Amino acid sequence: MPAVYASVDLGGTNIKCLLATEDGSVLGSQSVPTQSHEGPRKVLDRMAALVGELCRQTQSRPQAMGIAVPGLVDRNRGLTKFLPNLPTQWRDVPVRDILAPKVGCPVYLLNDVRTATLGELCFGHGRTAGTMAFFALGTGIGGGVAVDGRLRLGPLGAAGELGHQTILPDGPRCGCGNQGCLETLASGPAIAAEGIRLMHSGLAPKLYELVEGDASRVTTKELAQAAAAGDANVKDAIVRAARYLGIGVANVVVVLHPELVVLGGGVAQIGELLFETVRQTVRQRVGMFPTDNVAILPSALGDNAGALGGIALAMKGGLLEEDSGFGVRGSEIGD
Amino acid sequence: MPAVYASVDLGGTNIKCLLATEDGSVLGSQSVPTQSHEGPRKVLDRMAALVGELCRQTQSRPQAMGIAVPGLVDRNRGLTKFLPNLPTQWRDVPVRDILAPKVGCPVYLLNDVRTATLGELCFGHGRTAGTMAFFALGTGIGGGVAVDGRLRLGPLGAAGELGHQTILPDGPRCGCGNQGCLETLASGPAIAAEGIRLMHSGLAPKLYELVEGDASRVTTKELAQAAAAGDANVKDAIVRAARYLGIGVANVVVVLHPELVVLGGGVAQIGELLFETVRQTVRQRVGMFPTDNVAILPSALGDNAGALGGIALAMKGGLLEEDSGFGVRGSEIGD
Repeated sequence: MPAVYASVDLGGTNIKCLLATEDGSVLGSQSVPTQSHEGPRKVLDRMAALVGELCRQTQSRPQAMGIAVPGLVDRNRGLTKFLPNLPTQWRDVPVRDILAPKVGCPVYLLNDVRTATLGELCFGHGRTAGTMAFFALGTGIGGGVAVDGRLRLGPLGAAGELGHQTILPDGPRCGCGNQGCLETLASGPAIAAEGIRLMHSGLAPKLYELVEGDASRVTTKELAQAAAAGDANVKDAIVRAARYLGIGVANVVVVLHPELVVLGGGVAQIGELLFETVRQTVRQRVGMFPTDNVAILPSALGDNAGALGGIALAMKGGLLEEDSGFGVRGSEIGD
Repeated sequence: MPAVYASVDLGGTNIKCLLATEDGSVLGSQSVPTQSHEGPRKVLDRMAALVGELCRQTQSRPQAMGIAVPGLVDRNRGLTKFLPNLPTQWRDVPVRDILAPKVGCPVYLLNDVRTATLGELCFGHGRTAGTMAFFALGTGIGGGVAVDGRLRLGPLGAAGELGHQTILPDGPRCGCGNQGCLETLASGPAIAAEGIRLMHSGLAPKLYELVEGDASRVTTKELAQAAAAGDANVKDAIVRAARYLGIGVANVVVVLHPELVVLGGGVAQIGELLFETVRQTVRQRVGMFPTDNVAILPSALGDNAGALGGIALAMKGGLLEEDSGFGVRGSEIGD
C-alpha cells in the first residue's frame, strides 16, 4: 500500500483538507469555512478534526502533513508570521507544535503560493520543467519560482513574490508600501476597479446590463463576459492589465529563462484574451532571445494546486532548500 | 603542484589572457588589443600565442581553458553565435575546435557576463553567498544569476540578461527591440547622453569645464567628477539612473531574494552616490520583506572578473548545469 500524506490549504474564507498518495492521487478531500474570527485555536481544532475525519473515512494514516499558509511563515519553528488576510492574533502561532500531536504526524508549513508552485512542480505542468514561475492572480498577486527542480525560497521564504515587481515606477500605491507593483495593475480588484469606472462613465453598457449597475457585483468574471459580449472598453482594460502582467512575466523570463510560466488564480479564468496578450507581450518585450520555448499555461491543478503542494511539502518532509528557513540567515520579519 | 588553468576574456577592444591555479591565484596575465577587424582566425591565433607565451613564462601546462565571449554562444558545440560588438563574421565560428589543438587542452566558451558572475561566485564575494546576481554596467547592461551556488543559464545560455528587464513600459527604444529596458536608462551611454544634454543646455558648468565643452569626452567618470564638484543637475541625472538601476535590482530581489548583488563595470566606478541610491531604492521598492540581508557591493574582482570566471569555467570542465546548452532544449537563436 502506498504511503499517504495529508495537507491543508488554509484560506481566509475556506479550509481545504486533502489526503493523497505520493503520486498525487487524491484519496479524499473536504472543504469547510475558515471562520477566522473565532481565532487560531478553534481554526486549528477544525483543521485537525477535518484530517481525522478524512483518515477515518479512507481508513488511512498520513505519514506527514503540509499546510499552505496565506502569508509568511517561520518554517524552522513552524510558526505563522505575517498573514495579511487573517486577524492579527495569527502572528507567531505555533501551528506545527499545536497540530502535530493532534494529527499524529510531522507537520510542515509554507506560504500558500510557494506551496502551489511546489504542487505545480511535482504534480502539474512542472513535472517536465525544471525551471518555472507561478503567478497566482487573485485579490493580490502571489508567486513562486523553482530553479532546476527546486523551489526557491530564500532566507525568509519570501523569494518569488512576483506580484511585487515594480512595473510602473510612478504607478499606484501598493499595500506593500511600494508604488506601481504588478499587483496594483493586474490583480482582480485592480482590473475590476477599472471596469467599475468605465461602467459609471457609461462606457461599458454590457457590463452595466450584466450586473444591473451594481458595482459590488463586478469581478473579472463579469468583465470577461462583458468584453465577450461586445464592451470594447472593457476588453481594452483587460488587455492593458494583461500587458502589465506580460511585462512581469517577461522580466522573470530575462532573469531565469524558465521553460514554464503558470498563471493561476481567479483572474486567469479570463482565459485566452489574457493568455494571448501575455504571450504576445513576452515575445515583444524579451528582445534578447526567442521565447518560443517558454510555455505560458493555465494551472494544471486549478483550485487544488495549494492542497496538492501541501502533499508534496509533506512528502519532502519540509526539506526544500539547504540554506533556507526563517531566521537561519538574516533578520526576521518585524522582529 | 596545484593544477593550472587558462582563460581568455575576449572583448571588443582587448583580449585578456590569464593563467591561474584552482584557488584563483594568478600565475600570469597579459592583455593585447583585439583588432577584431582582422577577422576571427587572426584573433584566435593571437589568443593561442598569448596563452603559449604565458605558459612558457610560467613553465606551466593548463588542464583546461575557459573563454569569456561578449555575446551568445553555443556551449555544446563551442561556437560563437551572436556577438553584438564584434564584426558579423564571428557568427558560428568553431572557437573550441580551432583553439583546443593549438593550446593542447579542452576549451570551453561562455557569455562574458555569465562568466564574470561565475568568477564572482567562485573567487569573489559569492564565495559565501549561494544565490547572487551580477550586473555589468557598461556600454550595455549585462548580467548573470546564480541560485544555490549554481550559475543559471537556461536552454540558450541567455538567462540573467538583467539589463533587458522592462523598467519603463513606454520608455526609450532598446537595441534588443524592446522599449524601456534597464539598459536604455542606466547604461554608460544613457547616463552620459543626459550629461551632454545638460552641458549643452548650460546646466552643467563644472562638466563643461572638465571636458572643455567637448561632448566626446563625456563618460560616467566625468559626470561623477562634475557631480562631486558641484553640478547639482549632473548629480540628479546620476541619481535618476541609479534609481532605475535600483528598480532592476529590486525586481531581481523579489524574484530570487539573493544574499548578494554585485554591481560591476565602468558605471559602477561612479561609487557611493550610485551604490547608496541603489540600496535606498531597493529598501523602498521591496515592501514585502526586509532586505538588510541583501548585500549590494562593487565587484571584488574588478576587471579580472571575466578572466577569473574563465578559470572557474575551465575548472568545472564547462559543466555548469545539467539541463542547459544551446540547442539541447528549444530552438537556436536566429536559426
